[in-house]
Amino acid sequence: MIALFTDFGLAGPYTGQMKAVLAQLAPGCPVIDLFADAPSRNPRAAAFLLAAYAAWFPAGTVLLAVVDPGVGGSRAALFLEADGRCYVGPDNGLFEIVRRRAKSERLVEVTWRPESLSASFHGRDLFAPVAAMLARGEKPAGEERPASFGRHPDWPDDLAEIVYVDHYGNALTGIRATSLPAEAVLIAGGERVTRARTFSAVPAGTPLWYENSNGLAEIAVNLGRADQALRLAIGSAVEIAR
Amino acid sequence: MIALFTDFGLAGPYTGQMKAVLAQLAPGCPVIDLFADAPSRNPRAAAFLLAAYAAWFPAGTVLLAVVDPGVGGSRAALFLEADGRCYVGPDNGLFEIVRRRAKSERLVEVTWRPESLSASFHGRDLFAPVAAMLARGEKPAGEERPASFGRHPDWPDDLAEIVYVDHYGNALTGIRATSLPAEAVLIAGGERVTRARTFSAVPAGTPLWYENSNGLAEIAVNLGRADQALRLAIGSAVEIAR
Amino acid sequence: MIALFTDFGLAGPYTGQMKAVLAQLAPGCPVIDLFADAPSRNPRAAAFLLAAYAAWFPAGTVLLAVVDPGVGGSRAALFLEADGRCYVGPDNGLFEIVRRRAKSERLVEVTWRPESLSASFHGRDLFAPVAAMLARGEKPAGEERPASFGRHPDWPDDLAEIVYVDHYGNALTGIRATSLPAEAVLIAGGERVTRARTFSAVPAGTPLWYENSNGLAEIAVNLGRADQALRLAIGSAVEIAR
Repeated sequence: MIALFTDFGLAGPYTGQMKAVLAQLAPGCPVIDLFADAPSRNPRAAAFLLAAYAAWFPAGTVLLAVVDPGVGGSRAALFLEADGRCYVGPDNGLFEIVRRRAKSERLVEVTWRPESLSASFHGRDLFAPVAAMLARGEKPAGEERPASFGRHPDWPDDLAEIVYVDHYGNALTGIRATSLPAEAVLIAGGERVTRARTFSAVPAGTPLWYENSNGLAEIAVNLGRADQALRLAIGSAVEIAR
Repeated sequence: MIALFTDFGLAGPYTGQMKAVLAQLAPGCPVIDLFADAPSRNPRAAAFLLAAYAAWFPAGTVLLAVVDPGVGGSRAALFLEADGRCYVGPDNGLFEIVRRRAKSERLVEVTWRPESLSASFHGRDLFAPVAAMLARGEKPAGEERPASFGRHPDWPDDLAEIVYVDHYGNALTGIRATSLPAEAVLIAGGERVTRARTFSAVPAGTPLWYENSNGLAEIAVNLGRADQALRLAIGSAVEIAR
Repeated sequence: MIALFTDFGLAGPYTGQMKAVLAQLAPGCPVIDLFADAPSRNPRAAAFLLAAYAAWFPAGTVLLAVVDPGVGGSRAALFLEADGRCYVGPDNGLFEIVRRRAKSERLVEVTWRPESLSASFHGRDLFAPVAAMLARGEKPAGEERPASFGRHPDWPDDLAEIVYVDHYGNALTGIRATSLPAEAVLIAGGERVTRARTFSAVPAGTPLWYENSNGLAEIAVNLGRADQALRLAIGSAVEIAR
């Protein structure tokens, strides 16, 4: 199974062209749209989202992850094996949090290049063919890199920011719920938000936070929109009240 | 074939995670995105939309339908066989109109539960695995329920409201066109709207209603947007002029 | 492989119903979403977009192209073979630019009709079944038409207009980059835009144009949105400065 994690947006020809490559080079392999709207041009926020959602997928899954504002520049292309899953994407920190939480990793700088490589769409021309190779059980040409390669030690273990706002207006933080005390109060948009197990545990219109189905602390409003009620967007700061 | 009918929105990881479950548990079974933007948190309006669109699918199709504002509460999980199709989803009225129009039904309250059930994402953890079982020809553990179970007798047979607005600004009512006299005039957004066979049968900018390709009375403006011209949104009332 | 090129929008049941038809009539054939948001009701702009993006697909691909404001009227249904690819869609100019650039073509007016044909959704009822036949290697009933049939000789070879705006706010013109001098300056939104190889070759916030990964001249702003900075939308005029 190949799961797509990109900031290409839902619209436009980008995801479709990547899937056309995968259909040709890894026929029969299921391709799953995980996120097409990961934090745009923001590998740091995207790294926390990817780590939380990739962990749900079974071993053997290939995560094709492209949040790549530096495309066409000199950043390396990476292939990472971590805890039995494969990750393919640019070297810009996107895999930092996956790596930090991994029990084991193997990191390869991919030196394989396609015959024709556009300057602006490595997702289609480089990363998708590499993902297809991995899905077929082949290894792309590359050079192994040490655990110190491409690290971002200044990034936190959990990110006290909004990293995604969903269709319902729920705002996902980059904080694992298990890293918080059971009674933790989050401050978001100037308001104190207490924990509940689920939406319906609080009155309509009331904000709450809860451990979402992928382990992140998520801020919602029962039968309302947290993004509007608390003025939250990707990048909004969240504070943990003591 | 499994058809997805949800209010998860186009964005975000929800549909993808459901499809990842289906790819693992019902490999090779085609999965169709029917609606990802069914009326949000509105099982009543969604019920009329589902009934109109499910009827187009061939016998044997599994409709995985999740409009589920009560997730995490005590509502039951249902599996319905009606007129040769299977439906899986929450007990909140979402299947009321399908049931009311069915020549035959078999209703089962699903008691099967996964090893790990999140509080907020039963679509992924409960309903998708059940849909996969049905697509494989297996029956989930459950208890048969009588025809009186989970009914909403106060709901009308056709809903004189807008139940969906599409990309073109066309506004779908919850009224079957065949339930209306040929000369029926609809009143929507304060304007009288007469029937035409197709868009191009009226001058540009003129509102019309017609029987859409799934049998619903749909309000449009030739080469314009009915939602803007008549100020229509999901829930807007429609009146049948006599 | 069947690639979908439509103006149905991302939302709603249209693409899903076409895919349900394809899953039944051409099982196992990969179906790729190329554009679901081609220029709405604008076959002329769509024709330039289609020609640029179809050329990337391998021989044998079936392009199912539906931008069809005249649906339900008298326009013909076409099946085109051009340079080894198949195209299915309405006769309204959508294939004009593909045809003009093709080394060889064979054009057929499709006379096959389904048992049940809705007035408003030929994508599902007519074009999708025809695409499935072609994907299976069958030919739909039809009558061959000469190269003079259905032409739009007044349309330019390259369209100096914006034909698409993507998720990042990049604005695609209908001009092939290879048709422009290397030093060409484009005037868009009243500003002079010079060429660069890639985004990062110019300072943040600066507009540039470049040859995109499908050969079109595309206007962008490094780490910004060209649509907002230059007030560009589908249909905006672009001028080539001399």
